[in-house]
Amino acid sequence: MYRVYDSDGSGNGYKVWLLLNFLRKPYKWVGVDILAGETKSPDFLKINPVGKIPVLEFEDGRRLIESNAIMTFLADGTDWIPSDPFQKAQMFSWMFWEQYSHEPNVAVLRFWHHYLEMTPELKAQVPEKEKKAYAALDIMEMQLSHTDWLVGDGPTLADIALYAYTHVAEEAELDMSDYPAIRAWIGRFAALPGYVPITFRP
Amino acid sequence: MYRVYDSDGSGNGYKVWLLLNFLRKPYKWVGVDILAGETKSPDFLKINPVGKIPVLEFEDGRRLIESNAIMTFLADGTDWIPSDPFQKAQMFSWMFWEQYSHEPNVAVLRFWHHYLEMTPELKAQVPEKEKKAYAALDIMEMQLSHTDWLVGDGPTLADIALYAYTHVAEEAELDMSDYPAIRAWIGRFAALPGYVPITFRP
Repeated sequence: MYRVYDSDGSGNGYKVWLLLNFLRKPYKWVGVDILAGETKSPDFLKINPVGKIPVLEFEDGRRLIESNAIMTFLADGTDWIPSDPFQKAQMFSWMFWEQYSHEPNVAVLRFWHHYLEMTPELKAQVPEKEKKAYAALDIMEMQLSHTDWLVGDGPTLADIALYAYTHVAEEAELDMSDYPAIRAWIGRFAALPGYVPITFRP
Repeated sequence: MYRVYDSDGSGNGYKVWLLLNFLRKPYKWVGVDILAGETKSPDFLKINPVGKIPVLEFEDGRRLIESNAIMTFLADGTDWIPSDPFQKAQMFSWMFWEQYSHEPNVAVLRFWHHYLEMTPELKAQVPEKEKKAYAALDIMEMQLSHTDWLVGDGPTLADIALYAYTHVAEEAELDMSDYPAIRAWIGRFAALPGYVPITFRP
């Protein structure tokens, strides 16, 4: 059985065990407390030298890091990865874009507002982060105004990658009222068989 | 023939046409000047609404964005992507890590130092960026002290993704003298058949 090292409330961790629930694969959830500094502890750095969750651990001890890479491994050969090469590449475009243009803004704002004490130093960085977060949401809204899912006719890993932090964008104090297509997509996503919320613990 | 929209000196653009040279596939290089604001022009936003290079354009007009996603498409079925599922996932781990933990520090520092006028506002952000850039280089050095390539026994897309900005880290004013394993890997990489330097124009 896989072990998933994760921290409560992390969208990146959620991607991994949400997919495992969709795939009906068993796993053991192992909590690592980011706020208590546990991801930077000597013990955890032996598990992941990069000092981040999630980590997927195999029964034989092998490990994989980076949420989107872990998903790519777990979903290999399933409908969560399009078989068409061009659509598969489009899925990866969204996933790399998520890590570069969405997560560092939407997820980081959520972390500051929802988990940290907002210092003046952080506060000064909020307007720039918000500008970039809304720019990312604009791109998603543009796509989802035309299609039900980010790529092709059904949900792919791109949707899981983007759902993880977009559906809790209010916790980043982002106003989602001008994003009707994103809100409809969030509803469709949460109705998928096997779906569990970010607060779920197995 | 593919068209590659790129901006002079971009490591992200370089990844794409470097791979095309390795694969001996013909392409047309189309310059878009980031510094002149051309990636944000109305004409270019029709090509890529995200306003960034590189873009891979097909003869039939279809387009792909995000350097690492484009490479995944172009290298499908070649030795640049490991056939072993675990190694393939490790390759993706490095590529997602590159976009999240390496590029925003190493490439952004290089852009500031090498292409922009260094304002006091940017200067204030340099120490934090440098800390994160060296942390990223430390992770690469750790791996390359044990293996010739980032994943498995030969070069993969992970090496191209990380080579693009690492080999010009001096332009980011990063001191590479303490990274002998990275420097040896840069030497191995530049000796690969089909290799062309970042200054190459077809």
